[in-house]
Amino acid sequence: MSLTADYPWVKTPLVVSAPMLRIAGAPLAISVSRAGGLGFIAAGFDVSDLETTLAHAASLLESSPIPHLNPNPNGTLPVGVGFINWGADLAVALAALKKYPPAAVWLFGAPPESQVAQYSSWATSVRAATDGKTKIWIQVGSVRHALDLASSPTVAPDVLVIQGSDAGGHGLRQSSSIISLLPETKDSLTMAGHGDIPLIAAGGISDGRGLAAAQCLGADGMCMGTRFLASSEANIARGYQREVLRVADGGASTVRSTVYDRTRGIYDWPSEYDGRGVMNESFYDDRRGMSDEENKRLYEAEMKKGDEGWGPGGRMATYAGTGIGLVREVRGAGEIVEGVRREAGEILSR
Amino acid sequence: MSLTADYPWVKTPLVVSAPMLRIAGAPLAISVSRAGGLGFIAAGFDVSDLETTLAHAASLLESSPIPHLNPNPNGTLPVGVGFINWGADLAVALAALKKYPPAAVWLFGAPPESQVAQYSSWATSVRAATDGKTKIWIQVGSVRHALDLASSPTVAPDVLVIQGSDAGGHGLRQSSSIISLLPETKDSLTMAGHGDIPLIAAGGISDGRGLAAAQCLGADGMCMGTRFLASSEANIARGYQREVLRVADGGASTVRSTVYDRTRGIYDWPSEYDGRGVMNESFYDDRRGMSDEENKRLYEAEMKKGDEGWGPGGRMATYAGTGIGLVREVRGAGEIVEGVRREAGEILSR
Repeated sequence: MSLTADYPWVKTPLVVSAPMLRIAGAPLAISVSRAGGLGFIAAGFDVSDLETTLAHAASLLESSPIPHLNPNPNGTLPVGVGFINWGADLAVALAALKKYPPAAVWLFGAPPESQVAQYSSWATSVRAATDGKTKIWIQVGSVRHALDLASSPTVAPDVLVIQGSDAGGHGLRQSSSIISLLPETKDSLTMAGHGDIPLIAAGGISDGRGLAAAQCLGADGMCMGTRFLASSEANIARGYQREVLRVADGGASTVRSTVYDRTRGIYDWPSEYDGRGVMNESFYDDRRGMSDEENKRLYEAEMKKGDEGWGPGGRMATYAGTGIGLVREVRGAGEIVEGVRREAGEILSR
Repeated sequence: MSLTADYPWVKTPLVVSAPMLRIAGAPLAISVSRAGGLGFIAAGFDVSDLETTLAHAASLLESSPIPHLNPNPNGTLPVGVGFINWGADLAVALAALKKYPPAAVWLFGAPPESQVAQYSSWATSVRAATDGKTKIWIQVGSVRHALDLASSPTVAPDVLVIQGSDAGGHGLRQSSSIISLLPETKDSLTMAGHGDIPLIAAGGISDGRGLAAAQCLGADGMCMGTRFLASSEANIARGYQREVLRVADGGASTVRSTVYDRTRGIYDWPSEYDGRGVMNESFYDDRRGMSDEENKRLYEAEMKKGDEGWGPGGRMATYAGTGIGLVREVRGAGEIVEGVRREAGEILSR
């Protein structure tokens, strides 16, 4: 396993924070990495701000370095950057990555039928731009996608993020949870000669029990998104964060849908993807047959309410995974990372 | 934890075989129990055969007793019986249970809005009929249902089966996987003063990795259905079993739907439930808008093909969970139980 070699500051099992669109900025990612995890900054599908965000990360690290990474032996920023590949502009991204090479990029969201070609192009360009220092992570949600990407010599993923159906935000519409997806993917990769690719479990994990479970399933680490929505460093509206703390019974309260894209006028996700969020009025109206136009109009009116737009009767999107019911308080991101790692260690040493 | 007290032949962590309709008969259940697990016989929604099935179990045990249960100290059959409560006739069931008290009954499938009343009536009657020797297991798929049932003094479940979205066959249409459902349910029961109820994880588990993961999540044992479809003792059509071995990529190949009920003319499941099975022509036609009448007609024609009715282009229902991709060979049920327990132990002792 090459994780500790490639990311010399991390502790195992690796805890990763997901690149949550607009929410995962430099402060969150750096706090996670500072605690021995690997924090991802969200670049998303519009990468025009990426260089500014990475400059911000660099300045935060300069003013308060990670002690044993001062300087970082391989010269990368000890954080990752997550892209949504159906929209991200490669040339603009490369300029930013060349100036501030991150430890990893996380690719996701290409149309499945062309993902090998698209990720191959990105992987090749990013490796060339950063002399191979920036590692290539790719998020998948099926065994076949993992095999297709692992067996492409030009993609040659350094890490695969195995995302199950419980995950918040976007993912494959049709998938299982990591309970079966992780071990089946691990077996299939091993049988195909790619068993050495580290696997990061994602989807439904909010605490050390989930991390320990992921390790038993064969993961080398795990990624949380929803848990970090309730971190002090998340760039998140108060109403959204309050809703994350309020909602219980994660499987009963959240749903996979495309309605939260449609209300915001985002129509570009390939049809194989949808997103999990807390059921709200937009979802119920959509299910009752309301037109996208009317639903979007109501959403835009709701935006004017600010934080009051989130909640049981609201329309603001609360993207979150089924682990939302396990998130009960806001904590510092570093404290979350250390607590989860400690809890998993305790469970496994029993 | 009272599992080893209530079921003196079992080894921990407890491995349970699910009461799969028409497939889980006496031979499968007894093999599982003989290996230190707890096997469930499917009574389903039509319990007219139950007394015959239990007599069969009793005679199998008489001709080949479980050594240290000869006789069983509390006089029960060392197997359980699973009911589908929207259809099962309580009076008929009670007569059979009184004659051949099993170690446990497993209740499932009542309409959620009346489940507390219905399970309460069953629990009270079964306990009265067997002098409390037969324990009450209830399957749930949400935190709220677990809390509602645990806090009813007349239901007072002895065990809760926590079924996640990966499970094959029927379950709550709207739920998460056990990755978040198990720990959130455990926490909520503990906070409500019911933390002592043993929890059995179900859904997506096919091997020792899943069992070890379930233990980390807080489960006292786990239940497999799909894995036992590929056991020598399963009462299963050759075509169905062959399909279980063939299908890979469980999350991509299976789907939750009601179409496999409709093709068989079963319309009585409460609307909150659906069932997971391998996607086949019935599913694709349903998605393309075919009428139930026509889909049922095509299904009935397909039945005449026998084993050839299963498969990629077939219409026979292959109910299975997402763990189907981990099932690669037929084994004896006892060997499965012992192998899974051993593998989980090895993982956790590393």
